[in-house]
Amino acid sequence: MPKLAGLLLVNIGQLLTLRAPVTGLRRSASLSEIGIIEDAAVLCVGGKIVSLGTTKEALRDPWLKKNRKKITEIDCGGRVVLPGFVDSHTHPVFTQPRLVDFEKRIAGAGYEEIAEAGGGIRSSIDGVRRASKAALAGKVLGALRDLAKHGTTTVEAKSGYGLSLESELKSLEAIRAAAKQWPGTVVPTFLGAHVVPPEYRGRSREYVEIVCKEMMPAVAKGKLAGFVDVFCDRGAFSAEETAHIFGAAAESGLGIRAHMGQLSETRIEPFLQFRPTSLDHMDNVNEADLPALAASDTVATLVPGANYFLGLSQYPDARRLIAAGVAVALATDYNPGTSPTISMPMAMSLACTHMKMSPAEAIAAATINGAWALRLADRKGSVEPGKDADLAVFDVEDYREIPYWFGVNRCVQTIIGGVAGC
Amino acid sequence: MPKLAGLLLVNIGQLLTLRAPVTGLRRSASLSEIGIIEDAAVLCVGGKIVSLGTTKEALRDPWLKKNRKKITEIDCGGRVVLPGFVDSHTHPVFTQPRLVDFEKRIAGAGYEEIAEAGGGIRSSIDGVRRASKAALAGKVLGALRDLAKHGTTTVEAKSGYGLSLESELKSLEAIRAAAKQWPGTVVPTFLGAHVVPPEYRGRSREYVEIVCKEMMPAVAKGKLAGFVDVFCDRGAFSAEETAHIFGAAAESGLGIRAHMGQLSETRIEPFLQFRPTSLDHMDNVNEADLPALAASDTVATLVPGANYFLGLSQYPDARRLIAAGVAVALATDYNPGTSPTISMPMAMSLACTHMKMSPAEAIAAATINGAWALRLADRKGSVEPGKDADLAVFDVEDYREIPYWFGVNRCVQTIIGGVAGC
Repeated sequence: MPKLAGLLLVNIGQLLTLRAPVTGLRRSASLSEIGIIEDAAVLCVGGKIVSLGTTKEALRDPWLKKNRKKITEIDCGGRVVLPGFVDSHTHPVFTQPRLVDFEKRIAGAGYEEIAEAGGGIRSSIDGVRRASKAALAGKVLGALRDLAKHGTTTVEAKSGYGLSLESELKSLEAIRAAAKQWPGTVVPTFLGAHVVPPEYRGRSREYVEIVCKEMMPAVAKGKLAGFVDVFCDRGAFSAEETAHIFGAAAESGLGIRAHMGQLSETRIEPFLQFRPTSLDHMDNVNEADLPALAASDTVATLVPGANYFLGLSQYPDARRLIAAGVAVALATDYNPGTSPTISMPMAMSLACTHMKMSPAEAIAAATINGAWALRLADRKGSVEPGKDADLAVFDVEDYREIPYWFGVNRCVQTIIGGVAGC
Repeated sequence: MPKLAGLLLVNIGQLLTLRAPVTGLRRSASLSEIGIIEDAAVLCVGGKIVSLGTTKEALRDPWLKKNRKKITEIDCGGRVVLPGFVDSHTHPVFTQPRLVDFEKRIAGAGYEEIAEAGGGIRSSIDGVRRASKAALAGKVLGALRDLAKHGTTTVEAKSGYGLSLESELKSLEAIRAAAKQWPGTVVPTFLGAHVVPPEYRGRSREYVEIVCKEMMPAVAKGKLAGFVDVFCDRGAFSAEETAHIFGAAAESGLGIRAHMGQLSETRIEPFLQFRPTSLDHMDNVNEADLPALAASDTVATLVPGANYFLGLSQYPDARRLIAAGVAVALATDYNPGTSPTISMPMAMSLACTHMKMSPAEAIAAATINGAWALRLADRKGSVEPGKDADLAVFDVEDYREIPYWFGVNRCVQTIIGGVAGC
């Protein structure tokens, strides 16, 4: 008898559903209700979640009784199951770890000294420009597979180390090629405005025009990205340039997100008219911007891995954002210069220990709020009938153990589109 | 033809030997020379390292040519091989994660509030006292297996959550039982002087007498530990009590180590007459103690996992210790209250990013200096002919990647006593 494309998980010790406590357009990371069902079961058919409840209810279900032989059953043995993580901020298109930067920074070197030693973002740009699309796709696919092993099933992936028309398109095509070989969901983002490339030093306005008038139309035409991202900060792009790029992105029909407030404060309120999906980093946020941000659809995506890896003692003030009613997501910021980790559990550990987010808040920020930050909350980020059957199984008895046992990976299985893998 | 108990590793991209650059009693973490051999090979026979060199040399070796069919060969494919980590400070005898503490601390609760909520060390003591020896041995064995998966082959394991004659002996017997089922090397330490147990509150002198006159003789008689440890700090045991316990340990023929300077400064020099093998934590060290410490055989074992997990922004000042010539080791401090990690790569990441130790220093601190901290440097901590064949294989091309890719485990194989496992 052929098996249905069906999967039944039973004996789940804690199922974290992240179900909406009330119907609404959005969720907040302040959500302490993560919707736990104990001794739970989940049925997935045709790549979607069909029903959930207790194991006892599932075993009594007449339809399930009739079709049980056609359905693959996984006994979770009391483990914790939750929605696959949504990592809404990664830079996976690079060729090499930046070990020179790492070692020089430890020795106390600043940005310029690192650059002189052949490190810095310049080395990543050189690497990407020289690499073939296939080589880059291989690197991205390796990262996607590692992400899945750590419980992540949806990944935002940025270009941004090419910084020329050809190399940005190559980077986005590499993301597309890798995504085709990976069962999870990849959301590509065009980050031509990452930094001003070396050949345009001192001519950022000219580079911004190329981003807007050459690169962006080509990206849109090739349907290579769903979002445009800008690194708006000291040493990267100004608020004015960012607004200009946002305007062009809106004209191209692309979604908008930005790196904001990592190194210095930029006023956020003027940007909200563009309805950015997410503003990321947010180490420096003006108090006066919080009410408008909280009232908006924009998610604040915090990436504490960068603070950790740079050896900073300060982290984004998650508690202030949550208290103001801002929706907070967590992401890895996976990149070779400032956050070489693909582990969402590590990001959650940092959120709990260094940003004082509760384990429940960290879970919500890494799942449903990450999905909001990619405008995928209709399909991702919670375990509810009709949503994609993307799940992670952790070998722990209590969900709080996921950020508690730090530096190790307790994810033992990832289910993507109703298919068990990893 | 029966295989010899022989193992040949070839095509090692970087073999970190940690060989002594000069003959001497000890090594320093300031050692930047970690003895790299590229395109290396290592031959292990009878559980020992027999020879090392380049792959080319190994393939030309007449003895190896003759015996090659009898020897198991592992092609390391350009990966990095180093001595198995020596984790010289762990507290693995506990029953449950301390999730109440974790969540309460995030919410801003202090020690007392956590204790009132049923958390704190009291909960670990209750758990250990109620548990059977077999149950505790199972927990220790689980930790040892996880440690090996992350590249650790030698582990120091402390009692210290029993704090009664019966429960301390039970804890040490559990360590012994687990050690028998694990191929690596376990060094048991008696930590009866961890804290004053609740039933002796306000009567620490009385408890110290029980530690010295009842527990320690029983531990020595049963050969249940090689070391005695004391938590010398505010809220635990005073300098005077520590000296008293050290004296009793010396009389019992047991080695000496201590938790020192975690919460407050204690002058170290008076203790050096007892020749402690290691002083651990060392967040607060008086400048005046550094010359004597550097001139002694005592290792400073830093455990940054505790600082990380407690959300502190301050870490032990490794650079100051190294500059003064003190031998610095790194350990996980694996325990349920303040450092729930078994990952030496995580400890090394913390050392590099937050204590500004170079990757080479972190490697030395996690291997040969850890071995010094257990007085096992004659057998462990470096890849040299005659030493135990305990090795870790990491799926990286450059050793600096081990602390660089943080929050993930790149160890793909651990070899213990010349046998490949994990």
